[in-house]
Amino acid sequence: MEHIGKIIDCTIRDGGLINNWDFSVEFVQDLYDGLSAAGVEYMEIGYKNSPKLLNATEPNPWRFLDDNFLKEILPEKKFTKLSALVDIGRVDPDDILPREQSPLDMIRVACYIREVDKGLELVQMFHDLGYETSLNIMALSSVPENQLIEAFKLVKESPVDVVYIVDSFGSLDPADVEHQVKKFKEMIPNKQLGIHTHNNMQLAFANTLTAMRNGVTFLDSSVYGMGRAAGNCNTELLVTHIQKPSYELKPVLGVIEKHMLEMRQKWEWGYIIPYMISGTINEHPRVAMAYRASEDRDQYVNFYDKVTSPEASLAPESN
Amino acid sequence: MEHIGKIIDCTIRDGGLINNWDFSVEFVQDLYDGLSAAGVEYMEIGYKNSPKLLNATEPNPWRFLDDNFLKEILPEKKFTKLSALVDIGRVDPDDILPREQSPLDMIRVACYIREVDKGLELVQMFHDLGYETSLNIMALSSVPENQLIEAFKLVKESPVDVVYIVDSFGSLDPADVEHQVKKFKEMIPNKQLGIHTHNNMQLAFANTLTAMRNGVTFLDSSVYGMGRAAGNCNTELLVTHIQKPSYELKPVLGVIEKHMLEMRQKWEWGYIIPYMISGTINEHPRVAMAYRASEDRDQYVNFYDKVTSPEASLAPESN
Repeated sequence: MEHIGKIIDCTIRDGGLINNWDFSVEFVQDLYDGLSAAGVEYMEIGYKNSPKLLNATEPNPWRFLDDNFLKEILPEKKFTKLSALVDIGRVDPDDILPREQSPLDMIRVACYIREVDKGLELVQMFHDLGYETSLNIMALSSVPENQLIEAFKLVKESPVDVVYIVDSFGSLDPADVEHQVKKFKEMIPNKQLGIHTHNNMQLAFANTLTAMRNGVTFLDSSVYGMGRAAGNCNTELLVTHIQKPSYELKPVLGVIEKHMLEMRQKWEWGYIIPYMISGTINEHPRVAMAYRASEDRDQYVNFYDKVTSPEASLAPESN
Repeated sequence: MEHIGKIIDCTIRDGGLINNWDFSVEFVQDLYDGLSAAGVEYMEIGYKNSPKLLNATEPNPWRFLDDNFLKEILPEKKFTKLSALVDIGRVDPDDILPREQSPLDMIRVACYIREVDKGLELVQMFHDLGYETSLNIMALSSVPENQLIEAFKLVKESPVDVVYIVDSFGSLDPADVEHQVKKFKEMIPNKQLGIHTHNNMQLAFANTLTAMRNGVTFLDSSVYGMGRAAGNCNTELLVTHIQKPSYELKPVLGVIEKHMLEMRQKWEWGYIIPYMISGTINEHPRVAMAYRASEDRDQYVNFYDKVTSPEASLAPESN
């Protein structure tokens, strides 16, 4: 059943979380061409949040996607479909064209478990405008089962196409993923499932394979793993490993060779000890990211003491 | 059943394959102390091959382990036992003291499938001298099943304690590992099993977890993954993830912080595209290692063409 998986490359969207979407138009064009040649089914080209609602003072084309701009830089749609992510409370309905007038094919809604109702309202709107839709429930590793059961009553009745298991903290291992997938399949048998992993414990690819073998059909990844903190499952690994005749590794290698090595010099992501630690203790990587930006960045023992001390868990922030 | 696994840290032995065992005594001492404090059961401190048989012109204490030297640098044995690896045809029996006179506790024999008979002769000798023993069958991903069946008839009758599944090329995924472990358990039910992984496809840790969950009890790893080419399963990931109250992450973090970052600047190992490619096509990493040492090191598309062209498979070398 391996051939039914579909890859959504999130390099621009999730990678933008570490470089404030500082991607050149040339890179995005090369990536789109490379993914199309590689047979990757979707490219998430950024966020479609509203600059007004976020009080943005500077333009940021991949954070605030604009349909006309997209048409300009990608005048010709190729094999790969385009998707965008939105956050609850940050979408201006006036920004959203009907699908037939937009280069976008899919709009995905990220939400925490407590906002599933709001997330499904947005899904309904995008669905009615003709888009494929997904609901991406973040921080799944911290969601109590009873909240999931309640949320899924709403999900089941909604028109959403795909429901995602999002391992925001990179804390799940393959046994955990298998367990979650089985639970999701039981509770929402009428929905396709997706998986979005983070590589804190070097398990992003293995977790994605495990999900696929258990019936998950939408697989998120990034070229060379570029994504927040430890990054994501690597697109090149999925393309070369999944048995699907239409996948080609070489175009992805071309993108890595031309762009990613230089980008990895400028921006940091991947298996880095503070991210490994935050994954292990099932915490948001924000504390580790701040630590990596400080002078103490390589003081791993000190970081471990800091985040595992009894006081650490008293931090007022929720996730 | 997770608690019955034992870790064998191979940082010195496998890591030495990338820096010609250029490890300071201080580093080896710090590593030994760190692994002992972390509760790691074994440290493979090098090869016990014969300098004479290898025509060595220079001393290399971790490649040609000497019992007196070991007693000098580690005057006090702590928690962690010591192991050494030997190769077929490179061992001088006169170099091997009885176990009670040696700091070594275990001697492991690496061999290809065609040399299993010779490997078991060595095992018998080490066993008779009082050592724990293992047989590490390399390049398992290329071994035809009938050869394995023949070899295991001999293995079953030998006194060897542990038989290893060695993913020399880093080409196995968790489903492959599960399949191999089940086969090994069926064929040699009277032996403990071990797993030695390489990280070409970012699957070393996941493969090791899969092996453990299927009953494998000896788990090879290296601190910060330091090992040939893509490196090994990371010791720090096993120590933090396996549910065993005696494991402590902090001492391993201390070793990484003090030594490994600097070593990683000097020597290269880890997830690097040519190694990913050689893992994917199930080839020995030697061609990729030579490529990384050349000026073309980052020409990934060119490397891919080279190793996947029809001529590539006509190379005269066996593994």
